[in-house]
Amino acid sequence: MCGSSSVYQNKCIFSLPSLMHSPPLSPQLLNSLTPEENTQCQHGLYFQDGERRVDYILTYHIKKPSSSRSNRQSSRFTDNAFTRSLRRGTARLGRPPPPQPRGDPEVASQDHSMDYHEDDKRYRREEFEGNLRDMGLELEKDEDTKTPGVGFVKIHAPWHVLCREAEFMKLKMPTKKVYEVKQCSGVGAKINTLVNKATEPLHPNVEENRGQHVKHLSYAFSREKQHLFFFLPVGITSLLGSGVYTAAYPLHDVSTHCNQHLLYEEWASYSVFYKYQPIGLVRKYFGEKIGLYFAWLGLYTQMLIPASLVGVIVFLYGCATVDNNIPSMEICHPRNNITMCPLCDRACNYWKLKEACGTARASHLFDNPATVFFSIFMALWAAMFMEHWKRRQMRLNYEWDLTGFEEEEVSALLSPTEIAEEPTNKWKQTVQSAMAGLKLVLLIGVTFAIVFGVILYRISITAALHMSNNPTTRSNVRLMVKTTAAIINLVVILILDEVYGAVARWLTVLEVPKTDRSFEERLIFKTFVLKFVNAFTPIIYIAFFRGRLVGRPGSYLYVFESYRMEECAHGGCLMELCIQLSITMLGKQLIQNNLFEIGIPKLKKLIRYIKSKRRSFQEEEREKKLQRYETDHFLEPFAGLTPEYMEMIIQFGFVTLFVASFPLAPLFALLNNIIEIRLDAKKFVAELRRPVAARAKDIGIWYNLLRGVAKVAVIINAFVISFTSDFIPRLVYQYMYSPDGSMHGFVNHTMSYFNVSDFQDGKEPMDPHHLGYQVEMCRYKDYREPPWSNTPYVVSKEFWAVLAARLAFVIVFQNVVMLMSDIVDWLIPDIPKDISLQIHKEKILMVELFMKEEQGKMQFIDSMTPCDGKGRNNHAPIARSRSIPHTHSHTHANNF
Amino acid sequence: MCGSSSVYQNKCIFSLPSLMHSPPLSPQLLNSLTPEENTQCQHGLYFQDGERRVDYILTYHIKKPSSSRSNRQSSRFTDNAFTRSLRRGTARLGRPPPPQPRGDPEVASQDHSMDYHEDDKRYRREEFEGNLRDMGLELEKDEDTKTPGVGFVKIHAPWHVLCREAEFMKLKMPTKKVYEVKQCSGVGAKINTLVNKATEPLHPNVEENRGQHVKHLSYAFSREKQHLFFFLPVGITSLLGSGVYTAAYPLHDVSTHCNQHLLYEEWASYSVFYKYQPIGLVRKYFGEKIGLYFAWLGLYTQMLIPASLVGVIVFLYGCATVDNNIPSMEICHPRNNITMCPLCDRACNYWKLKEACGTARASHLFDNPATVFFSIFMALWAAMFMEHWKRRQMRLNYEWDLTGFEEEEVSALLSPTEIAEEPTNKWKQTVQSAMAGLKLVLLIGVTFAIVFGVILYRISITAALHMSNNPTTRSNVRLMVKTTAAIINLVVILILDEVYGAVARWLTVLEVPKTDRSFEERLIFKTFVLKFVNAFTPIIYIAFFRGRLVGRPGSYLYVFESYRMEECAHGGCLMELCIQLSITMLGKQLIQNNLFEIGIPKLKKLIRYIKSKRRSFQEEEREKKLQRYETDHFLEPFAGLTPEYMEMIIQFGFVTLFVASFPLAPLFALLNNIIEIRLDAKKFVAELRRPVAARAKDIGIWYNLLRGVAKVAVIINAFVISFTSDFIPRLVYQYMYSPDGSMHGFVNHTMSYFNVSDFQDGKEPMDPHHLGYQVEMCRYKDYREPPWSNTPYVVSKEFWAVLAARLAFVIVFQNVVMLMSDIVDWLIPDIPKDISLQIHKEKILMVELFMKEEQGKMQFIDSMTPCDGKGRNNHAPIARSRSIPHTHSHTHANNF
Repeated sequence: MCGSSSVYQNKCIFSLPSLMHSPPLSPQLLNSLTPEENTQCQHGLYFQDGERRVDYILTYHIKKPSSSRSNRQSSRFTDNAFTRSLRRGTARLGRPPPPQPRGDPEVASQDHSMDYHEDDKRYRREEFEGNLRDMGLELEKDEDTKTPGVGFVKIHAPWHVLCREAEFMKLKMPTKKVYEVKQCSGVGAKINTLVNKATEPLHPNVEENRGQHVKHLSYAFSREKQHLFFFLPVGITSLLGSGVYTAAYPLHDVSTHCNQHLLYEEWASYSVFYKYQPIGLVRKYFGEKIGLYFAWLGLYTQMLIPASLVGVIVFLYGCATVDNNIPSMEICHPRNNITMCPLCDRACNYWKLKEACGTARASHLFDNPATVFFSIFMALWAAMFMEHWKRRQMRLNYEWDLTGFEEEEVSALLSPTEIAEEPTNKWKQTVQSAMAGLKLVLLIGVTFAIVFGVILYRISITAALHMSNNPTTRSNVRLMVKTTAAIINLVVILILDEVYGAVARWLTVLEVPKTDRSFEERLIFKTFVLKFVNAFTPIIYIAFFRGRLVGRPGSYLYVFESYRMEECAHGGCLMELCIQLSITMLGKQLIQNNLFEIGIPKLKKLIRYIKSKRRSFQEEEREKKLQRYETDHFLEPFAGLTPEYMEMIIQFGFVTLFVASFPLAPLFALLNNIIEIRLDAKKFVAELRRPVAARAKDIGIWYNLLRGVAKVAVIINAFVISFTSDFIPRLVYQYMYSPDGSMHGFVNHTMSYFNVSDFQDGKEPMDPHHLGYQVEMCRYKDYREPPWSNTPYVVSKEFWAVLAARLAFVIVFQNVVMLMSDIVDWLIPDIPKDISLQIHKEKILMVELFMKEEQGKMQFIDSMTPCDGKGRNNHAPIARSRSIPHTHSHTHANNF
Repeated sequence: MCGSSSVYQNKCIFSLPSLMHSPPLSPQLLNSLTPEENTQCQHGLYFQDGERRVDYILTYHIKKPSSSRSNRQSSRFTDNAFTRSLRRGTARLGRPPPPQPRGDPEVASQDHSMDYHEDDKRYRREEFEGNLRDMGLELEKDEDTKTPGVGFVKIHAPWHVLCREAEFMKLKMPTKKVYEVKQCSGVGAKINTLVNKATEPLHPNVEENRGQHVKHLSYAFSREKQHLFFFLPVGITSLLGSGVYTAAYPLHDVSTHCNQHLLYEEWASYSVFYKYQPIGLVRKYFGEKIGLYFAWLGLYTQMLIPASLVGVIVFLYGCATVDNNIPSMEICHPRNNITMCPLCDRACNYWKLKEACGTARASHLFDNPATVFFSIFMALWAAMFMEHWKRRQMRLNYEWDLTGFEEEEVSALLSPTEIAEEPTNKWKQTVQSAMAGLKLVLLIGVTFAIVFGVILYRISITAALHMSNNPTTRSNVRLMVKTTAAIINLVVILILDEVYGAVARWLTVLEVPKTDRSFEERLIFKTFVLKFVNAFTPIIYIAFFRGRLVGRPGSYLYVFESYRMEECAHGGCLMELCIQLSITMLGKQLIQNNLFEIGIPKLKKLIRYIKSKRRSFQEEEREKKLQRYETDHFLEPFAGLTPEYMEMIIQFGFVTLFVASFPLAPLFALLNNIIEIRLDAKKFVAELRRPVAARAKDIGIWYNLLRGVAKVAVIINAFVISFTSDFIPRLVYQYMYSPDGSMHGFVNHTMSYFNVSDFQDGKEPMDPHHLGYQVEMCRYKDYREPPWSNTPYVVSKEFWAVLAARLAFVIVFQNVVMLMSDIVDWLIPDIPKDISLQIHKEKILMVELFMKEEQGKMQFIDSMTPCDGKGRNNHAPIARSRSIPHTHSHTHANNF
């Protein structure tokens, strides 16, 4: 046995040097693997001995700073003795024993001045730290900081612990074996080189992009998740939750050579807004989860470029063709003499269709055949985006050596025994879930109610303003009302957004989900539903309900018996939809991004500055000399990526859902995101505590939500085109009713006649001679029989024909677009071809390597053992099936 | 190093005994792991020494049996010497060197009687066999069999090769650690026990279902696929393709104790048709891929039970309510006196609506509100089926220890270098793909043409038969024509089915796909498209086109200027759709299953029996003494699962696509499948060569095809309900036009008037007084204006209203059902809860085990090495990061 084992030492494939000089595996790991490099910036980055690096910080409250400070030294030493004694008894993983507050006389005598509560916390801290030491971590306590009331536990993970954990997590390790990434030759390669040269200035100035021709072959050493992530064993969440510790964070890396500096220059700066992000560096510093967020955001922003280009072209097409548009020409024609029915009861007068000329022309900008093309384009764009993201994700997975890694639900809230016993209180949980669901429905109801309130406001204000005698007021009525209503909507949306975030969290807590991940997903889903409903209800109202339920002259529909339902301007409701959309979208982005994300931090800084002015010089001086872990403690804690993703997915909604009515949405989104990326980057690099690097293969539930939005977008756009715009009525007129196949006469065709003598009593205009002549017939926009038919005012055959055409369009549009999306999905392979070739190649190389190993071993054994049939069968495997990947550990010995 | 390595020997967790007595890992593996058990049936199951088991067989043609047989002995020995010399030079994996036919004087002198071609084949065989020996396999040749012209190579994989491959494939190995699968307690458990007792007779009489309370903890030793599956290295496919070998198969296991016997009794027998399948045993014997097929078929059949129950109830509801159906009552009412327009030009006469009484009553069976409910139910059923299959698959993955296993594309056709260089001839390939696509479209065109031909046949025959003067012929015209046309359709479908299978293969070969898997998937997709179009085009024609494009009396639509398009009987086309569906479905199942799958093999057997009668007694005797590998050689080769899956997916199409018109489809499918399972089982156990056990995690592309069919089913059912059935017109009449809100008057409302004086010249009936009175107005089924309106015969307002309602129904139905399916998808978790709990528990147990190991090691090292800060960091990991899973190899030594 021994002999055979020593034979493998020179056959090993993993080597430490390759580990140290190749792209690192996990940010926390890497930082600790190269401790010698950054010795120049020692400000709290190292233990007192100046050698061991601080990898992680835990903080806690010190109740009585004076008394605590007095026995600091002693506590540090007794601590060790104490926890060591504890360890023997209770060092069981993941299951902290029930606290024995009065069990140990040592603790009781030492801290008898503290109250029971503090005592308990102290006990649990010490036990936890004992566990950490048991796992091989090295701890140093520091309660004598310049920050009164806060104790710091500095944690260092020595090399052997890192190795053990890497093996345990089965991290993929780069091997000694290096292979050349084959550059394709021929025309493709030349084009590639040209493209690379042309995009050179777009790439960040970071080493990682150079010299990628060689790759270290990495072997699937890794599969499971870091469910035992070394300094975060099961329990830290609950310890943080119950206040035993106040914070837990790794340190920012501020030395000059180090990543943070580079990130600051090449990433978190507005001056590089046109460049690609240095995603590899981001991942190195913040971990895969945050790396994926920025990669996703980057791809989304990139994909918005073609979308906004096409959007602008569509908009310009609308602008260019506005003078050739026959319906608006007819409306604006000076000889157009159509008298329209009044828009409100009594106060309003008959009006000339000519007055709607401006609106009609403006409507054409957003209501032309190009819009139909654009919404099909955007549906396919969304499908393409999804597919490209899958590919990008796959590529990143490969580059980050995550290909074998499987995510697992980490049960942070319950221990295994609790999980096993949990089915008993299933009923209680079901009831709670149902309750939470009910409350969600209630909240959606509240949102609807608010939207309805705004509608009522608009109706009543319109009516009131129409009453006014000032003619200029009256002419500006519509615009004023629309704008104020949209702003009110915006404000309501912004306030409810904040409220709903809190409500969703509260609802999810009610449900008591079993795992961290399940908790997060439920929370995200609830928040998403509430925020989505909040943002889009007013828009959906305008798109699909406004102007539909007005009734007809002589029998209008009334709300609360006195308010007539709103009508749309002549060009359809598309124009108003467009106004509402742009105000909501721009307002949300400007206010939430610029005010909340830039303004408020600036304000906070100002307040802090003013406060610091009032402080004594001594204190200020002290602040300057703060240890690194103290400075980081003053930063905002990292609150997760949910708000960032949420903001983006709502924006994605604006970009896709109503794109038929607002082709400029992608452009606004693009402009916003260019700022957003750098804003977020600055926040992560400088304003937040460094987040714990988490591994992730994908963006999780967000992908599903994106898919959901993209799906809903198809049907909503189908309805916007067929019901909100005049596209279908125009087509029907042209091909079914037009005498000469042109659009001439369309305006007349869409309007029905009303005999003013049929007005209900008290509803007719107060001033019937306003236009200067006696009105007998007025017109209104609807397909109804004229007063002289057998069935006056009944919906006409045209109405049904147009309705059938609209519905048919919805079916065709929805199914065609869905089919096309499926085809896009099917045509674009999920794994980029070069990556799949490379994976395949790596596997073959690995196989060859292994086979050589095997043959070497077999020859060795053949020469050692006498070969008889049966004996060989039994003894040979002992040596032959020895694992190769793990021999890297032997090599470490050789290299030191 | 040596010292530390020997320490781990007694800490290992994998042990050989557990390997041998626990559920096996891979069928081929297992069979070889227990060679001593089956020594009683030695008929060709073992090598000449009677000890080494035959694991696999390769066969080849011997061109000149006499000359070959004479130097058989010498060839076997020179063979070894020859290949050994070859091996030294060319033993590179997966890349056979170009044949050097005249290079070696030894070969040339020995076989100079053989022609160049045979020589080359022989050379390649020998080289391949040399490679196999290099890999550690043991080979025995046998050319002196009772089967002249066929040479056999028997392959035995010794234990150490199996071990190496198992490790290489990273098969999950059961460990020594055994844990109890927790049985839940409480009410749930009691119910569970009761259910288990009640279903006891349904379970197969197989050991595997008992004693499942204990499970061996298995560790993720495995991840990759068997890309080096030991006896099938890259190249066997091409060797088989070029005829170097004629067959490659493992042996059936025919000893009394063994699985085949048990499978025969408990699975491949009609007498156990009501029982669950012993899936574990199937997988053990045939491998995961075939196991998954039967598991899928089983679940599908099981899921058909509720579907057919509900279908029968819906059908019975139709039967029960046929007498309360007002429209058919009105049609059948004796006082009903409506005169209908003739159904064909000149030859046909006016007829009384009363004559359609029978059809109207029959139509109600399939056209009632319950049908709408049933098609929603079936859409949800399909979604449920998908979800349940995902769960079942997950459960099987867990039970079969496939959870970590990742499938990989095996490039069997190209070597790695070829893959890398392949992009150069990309254009050629693209052109070929496009060509193949074009041909596919052409073939679909052919299918359409054939359908059109059948339509023409039907039209012309109808017209011809109407001409006949025999009154009984004329009354039976419709039924005869329908039935013959449906049968012609069926025959065409059956013939084209066979043709298209071959065509799809040819088209796929044209495309030159790069990998085996890609080839298979493309082939399946093409075959699926062709067979699907083939099976469903006539049905789609009847459902959506027949009777729509007929024109109206006085201006009918003509094909080729003389044939009037077909109309449907009065009750809508649903009745005819139903007839076509049932004939196609039943016919396909009866003929393809019973005739092709049962009849033809029986016939072959009969022929063989007759032939054998004519043989000499000596030959017969010889046949009885055939070696096992010879008997297997005479069995049909295994041709893949594609035909089985294809049959089922087309059936799934019949069950879901037009279920609105044929609620009995699930019942017929159920009856068919109960037979199908046992039929397939018999085939696999007794009539086919044993397939190579292939690992698979899922059913691959079939799942996507199923999803696709289920998606298409939603939209097709929406259209069937709204356009083919009279459901929507009835609703519209009831809520919009009915004077009293009942269905009275509906029949009259759906028919328009025609003034017979408006007939075109030469189109009016020859015998206008056939009914005994002068007809002035006749009626036809359409919504058109009456002759006395301003716009006679123009489609009426009712037409547009009904059309709008139909289209609205399609939109609502499609979106509601899609939403409900998504909700079903979302509500049912993909991983069954007990499985996810168990996986979690296993992981925790594994972690605990590992931690104990670690601590043991650390203590050992602490006691061995002097502890100084830096030295510890560098030296400690050597021992601590040693891999634990692989220490099983040491244990093997201990156990032997």
